[in-house]
Order: sequence, then structure tokens, then C-alpha cells
Amino acid sequence: MQTLKVDLGERSYPIHIGEGLLDQPELLAPHIAGRQVAIISNETVAPLYLERLSRSLSAYSVISVILPDGEAHKNWETLQLIFDGLLTARHDRRTTVIALGGGVIGDMAGFAAACYQRGVDFIQVPTTLLSQVDSSVGGKTGINHPLGKNMVGAFYQPQAVLIDTATLNTLPPRELSAGLAEVIKYGLICDEPFLTWLEEHVDALRNLDQVALTEAISRSCAAKALVVNADERESGVRATLNLGHTFGHAIETHMGYGVWLHGEAVAAGTVMALEMSQRLGWISAQERDRGIHLFQRAGLPVIPPEEMTEADFLEHMAIDKKVIDGRLRLVLLRHMGEAVVTDDYPKEILQATLGADYRALAQLKG
Amino acid sequence: MQTLKVDLGERSYPIHIGEGLLDQPELLAPHIAGRQVAIISNETVAPLYLERLSRSLSAYSVISVILPDGEAHKNWETLQLIFDGLLTARHDRRTTVIALGGGVIGDMAGFAAACYQRGVDFIQVPTTLLSQVDSSVGGKTGINHPLGKNMVGAFYQPQAVLIDTATLNTLPPRELSAGLAEVIKYGLICDEPFLTWLEEHVDALRNLDQVALTEAISRSCAAKALVVNADERESGVRATLNLGHTFGHAIETHMGYGVWLHGEAVAAGTVMALEMSQRLGWISAQERDRGIHLFQRAGLPVIPPEEMTEADFLEHMAIDKKVIDGRLRLVLLRHMGEAVVTDDYPKEILQATLGADYRALAQLKG
Repeated sequence: MQTLKVDLGERSYPIHIGEGLLDQPELLAPHIAGRQVAIISNETVAPLYLERLSRSLSAYSVISVILPDGEAHKNWETLQLIFDGLLTARHDRRTTVIALGGGVIGDMAGFAAACYQRGVDFIQVPTTLLSQVDSSVGGKTGINHPLGKNMVGAFYQPQAVLIDTATLNTLPPRELSAGLAEVIKYGLICDEPFLTWLEEHVDALRNLDQVALTEAISRSCAAKALVVNADERESGVRATLNLGHTFGHAIETHMGYGVWLHGEAVAAGTVMALEMSQRLGWISAQERDRGIHLFQRAGLPVIPPEEMTEADFLEHMAIDKKVIDGRLRLVLLRHMGEAVVTDDYPKEILQATLGADYRALAQLKG
Repeated sequence: MQTLKVDLGERSYPIHIGEGLLDQPELLAPHIAGRQVAIISNETVAPLYLERLSRSLSAYSVISVILPDGEAHKNWETLQLIFDGLLTARHDRRTTVIALGGGVIGDMAGFAAACYQRGVDFIQVPTTLLSQVDSSVGGKTGINHPLGKNMVGAFYQPQAVLIDTATLNTLPPRELSAGLAEVIKYGLICDEPFLTWLEEHVDALRNLDQVALTEAISRSCAAKALVVNADERESGVRATLNLGHTFGHAIETHMGYGVWLHGEAVAAGTVMALEMSQRLGWISAQERDRGIHLFQRAGLPVIPPEEMTEADFLEHMAIDKKVIDGRLRLVLLRHMGEAVVTDDYPKEILQATLGADYRALAQLKG
């Protein structure tokens, strides 16, 4: 087992990573203050892992709230089921909410914990690669609104994060690839040697090699923890974690939540950021193609949806949270392994990027 | 104009109190960071003050969201109207949300500001006495749930609070009295000399004497700011602000939101706390009666609803946020002007308090 510490003063918390951690109650006990625990999971994950986690919590009064699965349910109506469950079971403000599932469960359970009685304790037990390397670190919680993704939420830190790598054995391969999109992102924004490591291990990762998975998750969490340490509330450097996300969110919004997986949209969005960085002369065409090839080997889409026009992208990006007083800030690559956030670029380069021939770029020689 | 500072480190903010402040744009400008402003008000207050406030904000891009009036609408569906308005007008994360109205508007606009894009700036312009002395100070925001009051919310501090005492000229007398319940509460919990001042000025306050109102609001806000300074997250001394609220919430929940005004329920609830404190031997019967008489002179109810049984009270209080692991903590008076939070009392005294003859206690000789 590896343990990282996210250092945020009095709200610091540990991330434990390893195989079989679900069966280790001693990892949870130090982080549960009261006698009540509410496990929030979904219809897909609960049959696989709820009983095992509940067994590790036999010392507590445990309820579970099982939500429907999927991004389409990341809304107020579903969130309300958590409040209903907590209030019906008379959970008080010393209860601990545990998220057992992927990013959607983590975001909703975390937001419910942030809001229930104005804030109760919260533990993350992420069971998808994406949530293990992304949404379980950094304190972002929230739900979607019909007019925009993650528009309603809170910054709220967990007491602890427990990552059992064995849960990836039941993850569909498409979702494993989606998680790899965020793993590759860390290499691109701040860790060039990790990119090289990924090029050597991407096949092992897709084959669920537990040693490679543990290393990739650990390095990803460490990279994110470092960025989050530096900038908890996303005014500056933290925004680099959104590489590919502005383009990606436009894709997700346009296609409808859940049609593309988040990681798939991020992959195609990051390819657009690579292309724009290349057009600005910041990275070479070879470096751009290196990124594209790695995404392809990870089983990810590198071409935005054919039906999306330039106008569609601009329409969806104008409401993005990264818009400050009407100027569109983008995360781009100054070099491979070094991202920057900027609104200082010719508008024509953005337009050319939106209109580029990604189909041609995807015809790479492996 | 008087200005108090609520000292919370980097989240400190000023409270300006005085007549005609709505027409002083220079008080708002230092607290608005971006170009967008969203005024949240309701159908009762907007026709009276929205145009004037908007005129003071002519330098900004201003939208308004007008909600239905009343505690019955303090729910998610109404909150959603704020998010709809912000997103439709494409307000970004530098927008400033301004609450123009009473406590319900303040709680909902504040919670919306806390959640919109995970937190945007927020200014309170409270227009009822209750919200001026209570909900505009302390950072509590939230909405009700069908199973409990204020069960979903956030601690979120405003950038500034602007209290225009002239807005009380349009407040219904019943709501003015409800606000006085909280004013009297400050005297009872921490400021005995203020109780004496109130006994001398309660008629002037009910007659809307602006000098007396300014003094009462200022002393109340100062008392609350002091308590909030000492304990921002309500683990200890802040809980004394809930004098009368545990009993009062039970009354509100049982009667249905909005049947009794919050301040009315607090008044009757505080009388119960006075009675229990007397039964514990902490205050004398004369001191209890002094409190009851002051509430009566302020035009407030001092008898709980006839239809509520002991069992009704216990049922509703068991879900109160002040319940820690099943033990009911209550705010009681150790002396007049000194409240304590305790779960150390004989259960029989609580039961006797719930069963006391408040009708007889109300027969006081003025």
C-alpha cells in the first residue's frame, strides 16, 4: 500500500492506494468521528462491493443509498435521494458519508456531504480509474444543470480517500481507457518523464497489470495533489488540470451527457489543445503526434464528433467556468510536460484549431 | 451610518447600518469584483426597492431574479430559479449575487452564491428586522427539506451587508415584532444591560423610531458578530444563538412552514427555555416572567400551539441539528444575560417543561 498526503492545513487528508484495501477496516476507522455512516453507491457498483465495504464498517450504524448509474443522473433529483436517506434514518451532523463508486457518485456524495446540515464528514472510495486519479483528489463536488455541466457544487475536502486497485478488475475496458485519458493528461501538463513511462506501460495498464496500475494511480494522484496543494481554489496553476476540458466539456454538452464518456471527451479535447499549441508554435508537430498516438494506444478517440461545427464549440465554450468577464481562457502546452493557462492568443488560431482536419491527424504511423 | 466589522480573517466583511443606504452606490462598489451583478428578490420586496437598488448599480450589467415570497418557497425548486437566471444570462464565476429581501431571500441567495460554479461573491441587503439582526450575520445559508428545516445548506460569508433602516417603514407590524424576538434574544443570552434598554424602548421600536431601530440593530449585530467571531462554525459558543430555536423549530415544523413566523416560534420557544431554566433553579420565577413580559410587549406569542403535545415536541426535536449522537443539547439560561449549551439536565425537567401551563404564565401583570 502507498499513502500520499494532500497537504491543506487543517483540512489535510491521506490517499491510501493498494490492492484489497476495501477489506481493511483499520484504514477507515481513524476518519469516522461519530457512530453513523451512510454509504452512497449506485446500481452497478453496489452489487459488487457494498457488502464487503459494509462488513469493514460493522462497528457503526450503517445505511446505504443506491442511486441510478450514470452522468445523466448527476442532478438535483438524484441528490435529493441522499438527503432523503440521511433524514429518514435521522443521521445527525456527526454522520460520515462514504462515496463508493465512480466520479459521479463521488461528486454527488461529496456535494451532499458539503450541504447536509451545512457540512458533514466525507470519505471517498473511488472504484473507477477516472475517479481514482481525478475526482477523488482536489475537493471538487457538484451536480449538473440542464444549462451546464458541474454548474452547481462546492469545494469540499474528504477526510480520506481509499483506492482499492482490485476494483478495476470489474471495470469495463472502455471506462479503463477513459481513466487513462486523465493519467496521460498529468504527463502532458507537468511530468514529461511520466509520458515516457506511460508509452512503455500503456499495454500493461490496459491488461490490468496491478503493479503498473498502482504506479500510474500513485503518480497521477501525486501530480494532482501537488497542483492542488499549490492552489486549492483554482485561481491559478490548478486550472492547468483542465487541459482538454474546455473543448471536452463542449463535446459532452453538445452530445448530451453520457453519450461520450468524460475521459473520451477529454482525450479528443486534449488533442485539440495539442493542435492549438502546435499552431501557436509552442510544441512541434512531432510532439503533438506523440500525444495523439499515446491516446490512440490507450484506446481513446482523438477526433471530435463529426457533427460539431466551429459555431457549436464556441457556443458551448462561452458558458464555460473558465470564462472571465467574457474572455476565453484556455489551457495549452507551452512545452510537452508544461501547461499554461492563457487568454492571450490570436482568435484566428482558435478558429483554425476548431476547423482543423483531425481525421487526417489521426492517420499516424505507430 | 454605523459600520461594524465581522472579523473572520481573509473572509472578514463590513456591516453598514443607517437610513437611506440603498441610494449610496459607493457602499457597494468596493465589494463587486466583476461586471455582472444578479439581484435576488421576491414578489413583495422587488416592487418596493428593486428599482432603487438597480439605480445604484447602473455601472454594472444587472439581472434580477424575482422569487415567490415566503418560507414555503425556501426549497430546491425555487433555488433552481436563481441558477436558471444566472446561467441564462451567462453569468460567470466573477458575478456578484445580491440578496434583497428578508431571511428567506438571504438564505437562498447565499446558498445559490455558495453553490453557483462552486462559489461566487455575495452581498446581503436585508429588508426585514429579523434578517437585519440575524440571518445577514454569521454566514448560514440554506434551504428546507420536507423532512426538516435548513437541512441543506452551507456556511458562506458575504462580501458585505448593507442595512437600510428605512426599509422597515414598509414592513408589516407582525414581522417587525418577529424581528424583535431575535433582538430580545441577544439581551437574554449575552447582554443584560441591553434587556433593560429594550424594556425602555420597546414601544419606540414598534413605532418605527429610526434612532431606536438603528441602535437596536447595531447592538444586535455587534452581539452576533462577537459570538460569530469567537466561533465561526458553531461548535461551541455560537450555539447559544439558538436560544429558543430547538423548541421553536419544533413548533414551525409541526405547524407547517410559514404558519407561525420564525420569530414568533422563537419567542414561544424562548419562553419554554426560560421556563426550563427556572425549573433547573438557574433563574428565578421573576426573571422568567420579566422575559415573558418583554416578549408580550413586543407583540409576540408566549404560549406554544395548543394542539402540540409533549410527544410532538420530542418527535420534532429528535431530528434537530443540535442532536449529537442521540443526546439532545439545549440552549438554556444560566443567568439573565448568560446562555449555556448543555445536555446535562434531568429528562424529567425537560418533560415538565414541555407539559407546563404556559397559558397561566402568560397571565402577567404588566
